[in-house]
Amino acid sequence: MKSIVITGCNRGLGLGLVKQLLKIPKPPSYLIATCRDVEKAQELQKIRDSHSNVHILEIDLKNFDAYKDFAAAVANIVQDDGLNVLFNNAGTSPKFTRLNLVKVEQLLETYITNTAAPVMLTKALLPLLKKASKNNTSGYGVDRAAVINMSSMLGSFELNTTGGLYPYRLSKAALNIATKSMSIDFKDDGIIFTSLHPGWVKTDLGGSKAPMEVEESTSSIVQLMLRLNKEHNGGFYQWDGQPMSW
Amino acid sequence: MKSIVITGCNRGLGLGLVKQLLKIPKPPSYLIATCRDVEKAQELQKIRDSHSNVHILEIDLKNFDAYKDFAAAVANIVQDDGLNVLFNNAGTSPKFTRLNLVKVEQLLETYITNTAAPVMLTKALLPLLKKASKNNTSGYGVDRAAVINMSSMLGSFELNTTGGLYPYRLSKAALNIATKSMSIDFKDDGIIFTSLHPGWVKTDLGGSKAPMEVEESTSSIVQLMLRLNKEHNGGFYQWDGQPMSW
Repeated sequence: MKSIVITGCNRGLGLGLVKQLLKIPKPPSYLIATCRDVEKAQELQKIRDSHSNVHILEIDLKNFDAYKDFAAAVANIVQDDGLNVLFNNAGTSPKFTRLNLVKVEQLLETYITNTAAPVMLTKALLPLLKKASKNNTSGYGVDRAAVINMSSMLGSFELNTTGGLYPYRLSKAALNIATKSMSIDFKDDGIIFTSLHPGWVKTDLGGSKAPMEVEESTSSIVQLMLRLNKEHNGGFYQWDGQPMSW
Repeated sequence: MKSIVITGCNRGLGLGLVKQLLKIPKPPSYLIATCRDVEKAQELQKIRDSHSNVHILEIDLKNFDAYKDFAAAVANIVQDDGLNVLFNNAGTSPKFTRLNLVKVEQLLETYITNTAAPVMLTKALLPLLKKASKNNTSGYGVDRAAVINMSSMLGSFELNTTGGLYPYRLSKAALNIATKSMSIDFKDDGIIFTSLHPGWVKTDLGGSKAPMEVEESTSSIVQLMLRLNKEHNGGFYQWDGQPMSW
C-alpha cells in the first residue's frame, strides 16, 4: 500500500490506525490523515512532524462542498500513483438512543457523519482509487485499491438483540448496504469494499467500560487490511478478520 | 382492527390500502388516511365523502414540528380506544441512483421521508398504540396494536445483487433495522412491528413496467395484516406473508 486516506485521525481509532501503519515493515509512502481541526490534533501533529510520509488534511466531513477541493489536495499528494486505500473511519454516536428520547436532528446528524459522508467521500475519491487500481493490476487488496468503511456490530440485524440505539444502528446498517452496493458496482474496477467492526474499544465513542484497547483493535485491523483480497469484497468483518452477519 | 393510520394515501399503495380496507367484512371504525395536500387527493376525498369511517388528515411528513398536533388530531378521532395500527406507507425514491450521480441532498431527503419520518411518527403515536394494546390484551395482532413499515426488497442485503440505488437502499435498510429495534423495545407492550415488501407494483414509484397491480398487492397486504400475530414481530415479509431475508 503506497497511499491511504484515513478520516477522523485526531483521536481514537483513527489516530491508532496512523500509529500502527507507521510500525509495519513497509509503511505507506503517503499516509494522509484527516481531522476537523488541526489545532486540536496535537498528537497527530507531533507524529506528522517526525514522519515525512504523514500528511494532515483538515476537513469537516459534514461540509460536502469541501470534498472537491479535498480530492484535489489528495491528488496533489499521491500524484500519478492514485490512491490505494480510503479508510472511512470518522464516526459519531449520539447520547440519547431510546425511542422516547430520539430527536430527528440526531437521526439526521448521525446519518450525515456515519453514512452520507463515507458514501460521498468514496464518490469524490473514486477517480484516484480507479487510477491506483489500473496501475496495479496484479491481484487485489490494499496494494491495488480498497475502501474500508468503519461500521459496527450495532449495525448488524442478526446481532441486534437489545434494540434501541436508533440513530447509530440505522446509520451503520445503511453504511453496510452501501458497502454491498459499491462492492457490486465497482467489481470490474478491481476495488475491494468492506465493512469493518472494530470491536468494542476504549475510545470517546466506545466509553471507558469497553474491554479492548485502541492498540489491540487497530493493530489487528492493520494486519487484516494487509491480507485483504478478492474474497473480502462486499463483506463485513470484525477486527481480526472473523466474518460478521449483516 | 378498530382504528388505523395510513400515511401517503393520495395515490399508489396508500390509496389502494384504503380501498381494500373498506372491502373486508369488518372495516376499521376509524380509517385515518394522511396526505400532503388534500386538494390534490381527489379520489381519496370522494371515498371519504361516501364513507363516514374514513378520515383524512393533512400532514407533510417532512415537517416534524407538525407531529405533535397530528398525534392530537388522531387522539381526537380514536378517543379512549387508542390506535390499533400505524401503517408507515409514505415513501420516495429519487431518480438518479448510481454513485457517480448521487447527490448528498438525495441521500438526506430520502432518509428523511423513508426512515426518519416512520421512526418519529411511531414515536409520536406510541402512547395511542400502547393504549389500544392495553385495551385489547387477548392475543397479538391488528386487533391489539401493530406498526407496519413499508420497506422494500431493495433494502435487503441478501437480495442486493445488482448494486446501485444508494439513496433508496440505504433508507430502507435503515428502516428495517429500526423495525428490528422497535420489535425488541416494545415487546412487553404487546405491539407488533414488521417490515413489508409490497412487491414490484405499478405505481409512480414502481413505474409502468412493474408486473403487479396495486389491487393485487394491497389486497394481499390487507389479508396479511389481518393474520399478523406474535411470530411476525420483528420480521420482514413480502405482500403474501412470505418471509424475506434482511
